[in-house]
Amino acid sequence: MSKRPVQRKNARNKGLTYKAAGVDIAAADSFVASVAQKARATFSPLVFEHALGYSGLMRPALDGVREPLIAATCDGVGTKLLLARAAARYEGLGQDLVAMSVNDLLPVGARPLLFLDYIAAGKLDAKAMATVIDGVVRSCREVGCTLLGGETAEMPGLYAKGDFDLAGFAVGIADRTRLPRPETIQAGDRVLALASTGIHANGLSLARRALLGRGKMKLGARPRGLGKTRVDELLTPTALYVRPVLDLMQKTTVKAAAHITGGGLLTRTEKLVRGDLRLVIEPQSYRRPPIFDLIAAAGAVSATEMARTFNMGLGFVVVLDAEAATSVVASGIDPWIMVGAVVPGRHGVDLGYARS
Amino acid sequence: MSKRPVQRKNARNKGLTYKAAGVDIAAADSFVASVAQKARATFSPLVFEHALGYSGLMRPALDGVREPLIAATCDGVGTKLLLARAAARYEGLGQDLVAMSVNDLLPVGARPLLFLDYIAAGKLDAKAMATVIDGVVRSCREVGCTLLGGETAEMPGLYAKGDFDLAGFAVGIADRTRLPRPETIQAGDRVLALASTGIHANGLSLARRALLGRGKMKLGARPRGLGKTRVDELLTPTALYVRPVLDLMQKTTVKAAAHITGGGLLTRTEKLVRGDLRLVIEPQSYRRPPIFDLIAAAGAVSATEMARTFNMGLGFVVVLDAEAATSVVASGIDPWIMVGAVVPGRHGVDLGYARS
Repeated sequence: MSKRPVQRKNARNKGLTYKAAGVDIAAADSFVASVAQKARATFSPLVFEHALGYSGLMRPALDGVREPLIAATCDGVGTKLLLARAAARYEGLGQDLVAMSVNDLLPVGARPLLFLDYIAAGKLDAKAMATVIDGVVRSCREVGCTLLGGETAEMPGLYAKGDFDLAGFAVGIADRTRLPRPETIQAGDRVLALASTGIHANGLSLARRALLGRGKMKLGARPRGLGKTRVDELLTPTALYVRPVLDLMQKTTVKAAAHITGGGLLTRTEKLVRGDLRLVIEPQSYRRPPIFDLIAAAGAVSATEMARTFNMGLGFVVVLDAEAATSVVASGIDPWIMVGAVVPGRHGVDLGYARS
Repeated sequence: MSKRPVQRKNARNKGLTYKAAGVDIAAADSFVASVAQKARATFSPLVFEHALGYSGLMRPALDGVREPLIAATCDGVGTKLLLARAAARYEGLGQDLVAMSVNDLLPVGARPLLFLDYIAAGKLDAKAMATVIDGVVRSCREVGCTLLGGETAEMPGLYAKGDFDLAGFAVGIADRTRLPRPETIQAGDRVLALASTGIHANGLSLARRALLGRGKMKLGARPRGLGKTRVDELLTPTALYVRPVLDLMQKTTVKAAAHITGGGLLTRTEKLVRGDLRLVIEPQSYRRPPIFDLIAAAGAVSATEMARTFNMGLGFVVVLDAEAATSVVASGIDPWIMVGAVVPGRHGVDLGYARS
């Protein structure tokens, strides 16, 4: 039906190839080879190298582990992707991807062993994806986790030009004899927390809608009090909590732990206590990054909705007994902040500006 | 700026919520809870149930394993998704997702232990996704693999209405002392294979382009010789090879194994042999599903391009010594087909209709 006979003839004479169908195997192979090369920088001595392909192999890390359990989790970076794409800034996404998964291993005290990435795109933007992979590699190195493999999928027709999605998958080794025991929590226990680096990778849909849709603020603007542009702030990568959490668990008994992700500070800390116990976090004890007030103001978002969506400045929260908590904070070498306590009362959480 | 004052007032008076920003947490929570409930049907006694959340925990399966290795892999289903969506037929996608990952554990002889799914959508189509999950659960049960967790992400703005993506992650346990040893392959060894169930989940972009773009054939058409509609044929789920492969490896020594995925039968079998050895697969020894001839004809795709893209009817290929191979086939109880042999010659593969 084409009105352009030259093209039509060309199409008729030349058989269809996988490349013509939108999948350039050679380019994809070259990208995959470069990722495989970069990944080697993360390999622990436990990696069992073999030429059999298809899956990665590692010896389990069992040093000092009495009853090993395999912990597994997966996550994506959500709509932080869209913001990164809009700004063409991919430096932080790799750390976000690794952090969202490996931080989820920590509440059970699992030490990250291996990580796999899934990258899907309509057409691979090799430069942007190389930047993402560089962040993945750097983050895996920082937390002692091997980037053992991954999948790169080109799916013309599903993703628009320049669009892509990322998923991460992490496996760690926990010790059954050293799992946190939330049932031992009692009134008088203390709450320690690690500061977040900002919004992390949760609640971006609401943040974007508030700041861009309703607030009509430019991403490049530098609001008073923020100290950097709005897009720099929103794209700050999620903190990696592996070292401080595992160090703390090595040193003392942590009764329960929460990675503050979807559901926000209020929902995540609610699950730490049971029965007639109430968790009180003092709003004066930690710095609430100004981005949260900007979002609340721009979107007229209620304090409760904020606290049920965002980490509000605290990215990881643990409960331990008062003596242990005091000694951790007194040592002064750890990044842990004393933020509150467990008190008798109706089950729930009190954040000062929001409660349940 | 809106010209509809009622809506504008409404928007002004009501603070922004996460739901208004496109993410309905309650609906997502309800879906996630139903998946968690269904997943319980796959739980092996090795699952360590705990209330700590964030990651799933399992005891490693070490019965009879002398030197355990953790095998990990991930995969998606590629553009088979787009075809399923166009046909609104989601029954097979769950099996495709599980099969693409767990089959990749088999070349190293790893027994699948756990599986995690990543589902991303603009807005969750709970009914379609429940159908996908039902397939995941059924397939995990069939291969004795626990669906230990997963992630459901709603990403308004990345995926168009009705669009979604799927990724799967699988972990298995291999035994270092029983890994296949391709270096032991010699002339005279035999090649056994398992029939594929059709196109599986590789090469769909080319197949769609050939059959729909260039061939202008309707998906619902029922071509002579196919025995079913074109869409039924293309959406036939990928075979699960776990039981026949692990049974074979239990029974005898497999020297090398290949899951025939991206790269097709030619590329995948090429990697089985090294040095001055040539792998010959007799085209008469197995049935080539008619869909491949339809694609080749409709797209004027060369035989070599076909063999470098599709499985051509063989989904899993192993090499073992002649005596063992003969005894496996003679037993008559296994689904293995004797398809060829290893011969001295220039390194490569001869499929009859294509070679390297």
